[in-house]
Amino acid sequence: MPGGEYFHRVDTAKYNQMPPAVKRLFTNSAGLAICFTTNSPVIKAKWTVTNSGRMGNMTGIAQKGLDLYIKRDGKWQFAGVGSPSGVSSEGVLVNNMGTEEKECLLYLPLYDELKSLEIGTTSDSYIRAGQNPFKNKIVIYGSSILQGASASRPGMAYSSRLSRSSGYNFINLGLSGNGKMEKEVADMVADIDADAFILDCIPNPSPTEITERAAEFVMTLRSKHPDTPIIVIQTLIREKGNFDQKVKKWVKQQNEAIARQIEILRKNDVKNLYFIKEDHFLGTDHEGSTDGVHPNDLGFDRMLQKYKPHLSKILKVKFDKE
Amino acid sequence: MPGGEYFHRVDTAKYNQMPPAVKRLFTNSAGLAICFTTNSPVIKAKWTVTNSGRMGNMTGIAQKGLDLYIKRDGKWQFAGVGSPSGVSSEGVLVNNMGTEEKECLLYLPLYDELKSLEIGTTSDSYIRAGQNPFKNKIVIYGSSILQGASASRPGMAYSSRLSRSSGYNFINLGLSGNGKMEKEVADMVADIDADAFILDCIPNPSPTEITERAAEFVMTLRSKHPDTPIIVIQTLIREKGNFDQKVKKWVKQQNEAIARQIEILRKNDVKNLYFIKEDHFLGTDHEGSTDGVHPNDLGFDRMLQKYKPHLSKILKVKFDKE
Repeated sequence: MPGGEYFHRVDTAKYNQMPPAVKRLFTNSAGLAICFTTNSPVIKAKWTVTNSGRMGNMTGIAQKGLDLYIKRDGKWQFAGVGSPSGVSSEGVLVNNMGTEEKECLLYLPLYDELKSLEIGTTSDSYIRAGQNPFKNKIVIYGSSILQGASASRPGMAYSSRLSRSSGYNFINLGLSGNGKMEKEVADMVADIDADAFILDCIPNPSPTEITERAAEFVMTLRSKHPDTPIIVIQTLIREKGNFDQKVKKWVKQQNEAIARQIEILRKNDVKNLYFIKEDHFLGTDHEGSTDGVHPNDLGFDRMLQKYKPHLSKILKVKFDKE
Repeated sequence: MPGGEYFHRVDTAKYNQMPPAVKRLFTNSAGLAICFTTNSPVIKAKWTVTNSGRMGNMTGIAQKGLDLYIKRDGKWQFAGVGSPSGVSSEGVLVNNMGTEEKECLLYLPLYDELKSLEIGTTSDSYIRAGQNPFKNKIVIYGSSILQGASASRPGMAYSSRLSRSSGYNFINLGLSGNGKMEKEVADMVADIDADAFILDCIPNPSPTEITERAAEFVMTLRSKHPDTPIIVIQTLIREKGNFDQKVKKWVKQQNEAIARQIEILRKNDVKNLYFIKEDHFLGTDHEGSTDGVHPNDLGFDRMLQKYKPHLSKILKVKFDKE
C-alpha cells in the first residue's frame, strides 16, 4: 500500500479503527523486502530496530535481522544475513564477490519495527533502486505462522518462499496471535486491489469467534471483489496437542468451526471460494515445530509441499520444484 | 563419562590439558537428556543457566531451553518445550495429560551450561529416575553444527535425531568453532569406550590444520581401538559461499585436505576407516541454512537423509523412515 511509514506493512493511521495489537503488528516489517542493483563486491548494512526483547522461539536473525538474496540464472539465491547486535546493528551481508551487476532482494525483520536501514557498497561502485520483481498481488491474511514464527531467517517466512518459487507477489499480512478476523481488519484487507485472498488465520480466533466472524469476513471481501478467488485454509495441528488433550481438542474445534462456515457460505452460493483442509501439514513424525505451535523450517517446507498443489490449481500459478 | 560436573559433557578437570575454549564448550549440555517416568498429568521445569547473551542464529529454546519427548507406541514423540526467560526460568512443559505412566526424555540446553534443573509434577503423582534408553556408544566429534547450531530446539540437534530414529546412543561432542583436532582432545576422545567414532569436525580446522592433525587424530583413536569403525565426514558446503568466492574456496580446500589425509591413512593400511564425501548435504535450493554456515532444521533433515544410508551400512544400524 502506498502511504504510511516506509517500513510498515499497512498505513495504520489511515486504518486507525483496527484493534491496537493489530496496528502495532502491522508496524513489523514481516515479508517486506528492498530491491536494488549494484556492482559492489561487498554489501554491508546498518539498521535500527526497537528495544523489544528477544523471543524464545525465534532466532535474532529472523526477529530483528536481515536476509539477502541475489538473482542467479533467473532464480533468487541466498547470499547472506545480517545478525542483530541490539537496537543498532552493522554488518557485512556478503563479501568477496566480483564486480558484475547483481540484482538484490533484502528481506527485513519479521518481528520488529525497522526504524532505519542503510545499505553500504564500495565507494567506486554504483547502487540503484530496483523494481518489485514479483507480479500480481496475492494477499495472505494470517497468524504468527504467516508472520514468520519460527522461520530461521526473514526470507524463510512462507509467503516469501512462495513468492520466490513462483514469481508472484504473496503479501504477508500475518499478525502474531491477532489474525482474529475483526470487521475493521476485513475492511482494510478488502481495500487491497488483490488478485486473490488467502485466509490462513484459523490458529488465532476461538471456535466461537470463527463462527461469529468468518462468514462476515469473507463477505466483506466478496462485496468489494465479486470474482476474486478467496482461499480459506484450516489450521495446522499443533504438536503441543500430541499429549495435551485440551490443545488437541481446541484445534479440532477451530477446524470444525471453519468447515461449518465454509459450508454455509457455499450453500449461500458464494462463488470462487476455496477451502484447504488440514492434511498433516507438518508431516507425521512430529518434528516439524519449534515450540509445539510454530513450524520450524522443516515444518514450513512440508506445509508448502501441501499448500502448493492447491494454490497452483486454484491460482494457475506454477511453483519451482526444490 | 562418569565424574565431573553433572550437566557437563566431559570431566574437564580430568582432561585439563585440553584448550580452554574446548573445556568451556564441554560445559554446555548439548546432546544431554534426562530420563524419567511419571504418571503426572502436568510436567513443569525450573532451570538455571548462565548470563551469556542470546546468539543471533539460535532460538532461545535451542540455546538455553528444554525440549521434552514422551514415548508413544515405542517411539519418542515431541511433547513440549521450556522457553527461557533469563538466567532462571520456570514453565509448564506439557499439561492436560492423563494419569497413565509416561516415559520421558528431557533434552537440555545446546549452547549454555545448565547450572540447576528441577522437574515438577503434581503432588499426588510419582516421578522416578529412568534408564538410558539408547544402546551402545557412537561418539561424534564435531563443530558448531553438531553442537546444534542452528537446530530450532535441543532435541533437533542431529546426534539426538539419529539416536531417536535408531535406538543407538549417538554422543554429541560438538564444539562450536573448536572441533580442531588437537592432540589433547584426541587423547580424551580415545579414552571413551566407544563402538564407533564419527569425525564431523572438518568445518573448523584450517586446511593446514587438517593436513597437520587429521592423521594423528585418527591414529590416536586407532591405537587404543584397533578394530573400531572410524568414520570421517567432509564438511557441508557453506551457503555463504554461493557468492563469497573466498568462503567457497576455503571450504573446497578443507575438503581436499581431508580427502588427501584419508588417502594417506588408507595407503598406510589403516582398516575400518570410512570416508563420507560431501554430496549436496543441504540440498540444492540453498534454503537449508540459517546464516550461510549452520543448517536450519530443513538443512539438517536433508543432511541426515544423506548421512543415514552411509551410517546404516557401516554401523549396521537401522533408522526409522520419517
